[in-house]
Amino acid sequence: MLPIQASGLLLARMYFEKYIYEWDGQLEKTVTSGFCMRINTGAPVPNGADAVVQVEDTELVEASVDGKTEIQIRILKFPTVGQDIRPVGSDIEKGQEVLSVGQRLGPSELGLLATVGVTTVQCYSLPTVGVLSTGNELVEPNVPLTEGKIRDSNRTVLLAQLKKLGVPSVDLGIARDSPDTLLQKLSDAMDMVDIVVTTGGVSMGDKDYLKQVLLVDLKAKIHFARVLMKPGKPTTFATLEHKGKTKIVFGLPGNPVSSIVTCHLYLVPAIRKMSGCPNPLGTVIKVKVDRDLILDPRPEYHRASLTWDADDATPTAHTTGNQISSRLLSMSCASVLMMLPASSPGASHIPKGALVDALVIGPV
Amino acid sequence: MLPIQASGLLLARMYFEKYIYEWDGQLEKTVTSGFCMRINTGAPVPNGADAVVQVEDTELVEASVDGKTEIQIRILKFPTVGQDIRPVGSDIEKGQEVLSVGQRLGPSELGLLATVGVTTVQCYSLPTVGVLSTGNELVEPNVPLTEGKIRDSNRTVLLAQLKKLGVPSVDLGIARDSPDTLLQKLSDAMDMVDIVVTTGGVSMGDKDYLKQVLLVDLKAKIHFARVLMKPGKPTTFATLEHKGKTKIVFGLPGNPVSSIVTCHLYLVPAIRKMSGCPNPLGTVIKVKVDRDLILDPRPEYHRASLTWDADDATPTAHTTGNQISSRLLSMSCASVLMMLPASSPGASHIPKGALVDALVIGPV
Repeated sequence: MLPIQASGLLLARMYFEKYIYEWDGQLEKTVTSGFCMRINTGAPVPNGADAVVQVEDTELVEASVDGKTEIQIRILKFPTVGQDIRPVGSDIEKGQEVLSVGQRLGPSELGLLATVGVTTVQCYSLPTVGVLSTGNELVEPNVPLTEGKIRDSNRTVLLAQLKKLGVPSVDLGIARDSPDTLLQKLSDAMDMVDIVVTTGGVSMGDKDYLKQVLLVDLKAKIHFARVLMKPGKPTTFATLEHKGKTKIVFGLPGNPVSSIVTCHLYLVPAIRKMSGCPNPLGTVIKVKVDRDLILDPRPEYHRASLTWDADDATPTAHTTGNQISSRLLSMSCASVLMMLPASSPGASHIPKGALVDALVIGPV
Repeated sequence: MLPIQASGLLLARMYFEKYIYEWDGQLEKTVTSGFCMRINTGAPVPNGADAVVQVEDTELVEASVDGKTEIQIRILKFPTVGQDIRPVGSDIEKGQEVLSVGQRLGPSELGLLATVGVTTVQCYSLPTVGVLSTGNELVEPNVPLTEGKIRDSNRTVLLAQLKKLGVPSVDLGIARDSPDTLLQKLSDAMDMVDIVVTTGGVSMGDKDYLKQVLLVDLKAKIHFARVLMKPGKPTTFATLEHKGKTKIVFGLPGNPVSSIVTCHLYLVPAIRKMSGCPNPLGTVIKVKVDRDLILDPRPEYHRASLTWDADDATPTAHTTGNQISSRLLSMSCASVLMMLPASSPGASHIPKGALVDALVIGPV
């Protein structure tokens, strides 16, 4: 302990090792008025001490002849009782709930668990999602195109989206348009995954076998198969029993934009719900449209990116251009889906500058 | 080809396989007025056809005796020229730029590459980040606490944050407060990673060796080592040459909140910049504070979560409570850092309802 000129106690920063090794035994000592003890950030407060002064707020008055020991120091700013002391319980009170049921374990939440020494915790399991493209017109992206063929982009997009969300996935490949192939692919998938997502095969064409295979072969219950929305009208949702477990099938449309938009609107909330998330539907914000928008007879999910002006709290939504459901470019850079109402006789468009609701689908 | 009653052409949905196999040779045929051809979604438009009618907009008038061949159908909605035909180039025009340099390859961007058959693409490499905790007071989260020890949460938080960002990382463990240990750990790290992030060891205590080791032993250039901000005052940034390569060191403060806040403010933008991102600094939005906030003498990064009211475009920012830098609970559920100005004689607080800038650090 060192005598000091000011009353109060100097407890400057010291790491704990020094405290317990170099100053062994002093833990039992009591700091009294006129004396201080050097400590480091994070160290416990010695007995009798009631304030900490940062070393940069002191100056050395007298040291030992060899310069190694401080004998007297001056405190430059008069300390107050409790200064720079963090009372026990100031970070987390005894009995306080650190995390609540359903909370997502992000970086800070995992850090809180580390802080309280919890290295295993009971979690909702994430569903495993299988992704299957269907259609005779599809080839893999690395296969040269022949007339009438298109490259399959849907699996690339959906598998990347699932990876981004941290959801385990299985690439189920491409199924030709045949009931036998579809049945085989779906049956195999049910052994591997909790949710099967297909794209294509749900329109009204005579090669659109998915619903038939689900109903007749797999005895699935189809909960809905057409939705008044744009894009995504043919979206199909079914459940079925497989070896004692309920499996979920999302039959998403085959158009590239339709499949990723309906992924955000149906699949992502379903995964969140199955993962115990208390708010599975995603965040809806208000945005200002950057141009006149013609309304469709169906409610439309219009892709947009956002900017914030310096003097306006409302973000401006910039449409990503032509919204036809085959144009995947309209999803590029989109961070929201503007939720446009259906047109009505009195309302055929949204004027530039109007506010609309927008579902956040990516980093803003 | 089937005769139809209405003028115009019926080209309903058909998959391509049927088109080329069952109707082989008809590709050469020309559809003429009064006749139609059955096609499926995604098929090319036959010669002579100038409109597509959806099968659900037709009704069968006459079929063959065995019921397998349609002979005559009626179109219920009069078609217009070009109806339901997607002209070549309507998704992507010839010569159009699909992705621009510096654009992040998210799910839709990867899908665009798949669409155009690009399966390899030149990318910026992501830097590899090593994470090192320093301090004699630290123990691993699974080690029982003894007096004066605390569990290391910083590596858990930072490694999880890097994983969330998709950035490769290396866990460099805990370094005791000794110059030799620090030097050894840092030297070893330089062989493995592009960026070393340390936490702790950058304050003014006599065990805060990081700067000394960087300057004296590693011949690093320290660009800054104290910043007028709260939290994060001791943040240290250095570069050094190691085997012909420039390595980056972020010496972040040891307090749990300080380390993750400065990670968002310094490390994340640095990684984005090194990854070729044209806007590395992150999105700043306007938020409305939910209560009076006392300003600190330093500019403060105040953690908050957001909600949107039904009738207001401006999100309300809800402070996460006590903002002391050891209280990691203040990061839990935070999606923004409100950027509060330093207090001044004329401005000591921000009133409830006022707008402030906020940096987005997570899903809103």
